[in-house]
Amino acid sequence: MSEPVILTLDQIKQRIDETTLLTDIERGFAWYSEGRTVVPPVGYLAFDPPAAGDVHIKYGYVQGDEYFVVKIASGFAGNLARGLPVTNGLMLLFRQDIGEPAAILLDEGYLTEVRTAVAGAIAARHLARHPVARIGIVGTGGQARFQLRMLPQVTACREVTVWGRSDERLAAFEQEMAQEGFHVETTRDVRHLAATCDLIVTTTSAREPLLRLEDVRPGTHITAMGADAPGKQELDPHLVARADLVVADSVSQCVDHGELAGAVQAGLLDPARIVELGKLLATPDRPPRGADDITIADLTGVAVQDLQIATHVLRGPISRSPGGGG
Amino acid sequence: MSEPVILTLDQIKQRIDETTLLTDIERGFAWYSEGRTVVPPVGYLAFDPPAAGDVHIKYGYVQGDEYFVVKIASGFAGNLARGLPVTNGLMLLFRQDIGEPAAILLDEGYLTEVRTAVAGAIAARHLARHPVARIGIVGTGGQARFQLRMLPQVTACREVTVWGRSDERLAAFEQEMAQEGFHVETTRDVRHLAATCDLIVTTTSAREPLLRLEDVRPGTHITAMGADAPGKQELDPHLVARADLVVADSVSQCVDHGELAGAVQAGLLDPARIVELGKLLATPDRPPRGADDITIADLTGVAVQDLQIATHVLRGPISRSPGGGG
Repeated sequence: MSEPVILTLDQIKQRIDETTLLTDIERGFAWYSEGRTVVPPVGYLAFDPPAAGDVHIKYGYVQGDEYFVVKIASGFAGNLARGLPVTNGLMLLFRQDIGEPAAILLDEGYLTEVRTAVAGAIAARHLARHPVARIGIVGTGGQARFQLRMLPQVTACREVTVWGRSDERLAAFEQEMAQEGFHVETTRDVRHLAATCDLIVTTTSAREPLLRLEDVRPGTHITAMGADAPGKQELDPHLVARADLVVADSVSQCVDHGELAGAVQAGLLDPARIVELGKLLATPDRPPRGADDITIADLTGVAVQDLQIATHVLRGPISRSPGGGG
Repeated sequence: MSEPVILTLDQIKQRIDETTLLTDIERGFAWYSEGRTVVPPVGYLAFDPPAAGDVHIKYGYVQGDEYFVVKIASGFAGNLARGLPVTNGLMLLFRQDIGEPAAILLDEGYLTEVRTAVAGAIAARHLARHPVARIGIVGTGGQARFQLRMLPQVTACREVTVWGRSDERLAAFEQEMAQEGFHVETTRDVRHLAATCDLIVTTTSAREPLLRLEDVRPGTHITAMGADAPGKQELDPHLVARADLVVADSVSQCVDHGELAGAVQAGLLDPARIVELGKLLATPDRPPRGADDITIADLTGVAVQDLQIATHVLRGPISRSPGGGG
């Protein structure tokens, strides 16, 4: 009986290679759309205030792969008042052939942020008009930063406009991202952002549309990350309906909640028009986007991203050396 | 952010104090019957042959306690051919107040065996006629050993009759348990066991009744451990119907599957007659058993046993020192 590998957050960060991670997660999306992944319903626990916590237990596997994964992710709103991070969690990998625990990734929720940002970069790579002239980031939180940090994997653009409601948070975002090589303009006018950016990533928990049809220019790609639960909405349903191409990481999830649900329920968007990201990736000879097309990707998060990033971390640099194998 | 305590199987074994563990799990059964535990439906994954594996993910908490628990338990039948243990797994504890991982117990399935044996000892303590004259163990597997090893916590009896179908396995059981201080008689005739034992523990995966009404003497207590899934049965439904007291760890589970389901479905046992173990434990002034009563406990396993044993291990000796706290 061999004991599982245990990796701390620092060790995990050292084992991430963003370039190959994008490829690993692209492959995962394709497997998901082919029906090769087994992902049962998410487990859930809730704790009353003052903890105000909830816990999601996600688990599953890619058929024929080496491992299955169990991820425990928590969000405890009460931690804010204690000066502790709200999100936390870990991921476990087990061997599919004998059930043995293979690895414990003490990632404190970090891998969820990264795999979410990777999905945004994948959408930008395949859907945005290249070269990108200016990146628009809607929101100033943690995921806004992760999204921006991942985009250099798919675009040379470093010109950024960020929108937020708080001058203080806008200034903090600008300062932090400037240190990482981005040229950041801040704004509290989302129409200004829409008028100047051609790759827009929305990362807020807004419940009213922020981006309106009349504000978005032809040729723009928008990736919506924030609407991960029923009732959240960042995009005008008429904007969704008008888009030339609408992509979802999971059609079934995005019709149930997320940006697309509102447009579908209002009868503005035919669900048959939605293209699943994994299907798009499995179609390399698809026609290129029109220069004036408006494209939208709605990403609600699918468990295969967790499977792929956990396996990526466990395999580490070995699988990425020229002669390496898993 | 403090890192979780990580304990290997050897370290876990050193932190178990059987006497206080019985009390901890008794308290857990009482909390379960009071409705103080939160235990959502079990998560499940399955793998096809040759692995022939399945994985159960159990999670929950006692309201107002310090931790919540996630347990991953696997059984991979294909491991037999590889000479590897079939069962494996681990338990995780997280703080209920801030969600932080507190402990990782790499128990390889050991704690599940122990908490199951503890439930058997609790049933024997409260239901058997004391002093016990002779212990009957039906079955020669791993859980049969764990059950017998735990009984000295509740009885001074060391006289044992063990029933099995294989002379080889009977001899191995006898030899092993003799080294641990038991005087073991082996038999392939379960009627002989029933005729000589007054505390009987059944631990097989039988699908046909082994113990029949006409074979069991007045004054006998029977704990049935084996029928943990639909279709499994160790006791004659007429024996269950005739018993003077029928106890279940979880009435809802035992009416659905387990020993009692058959008798209930055949109309031989009124479900209202079944007493839940935690309710019994919370009634210290209940009348004593009649000397000639036949009593039956059907134990299918409830998640609060996992919660309590995991917390017991994490708290370790500190909580059991005179001035200690959790």
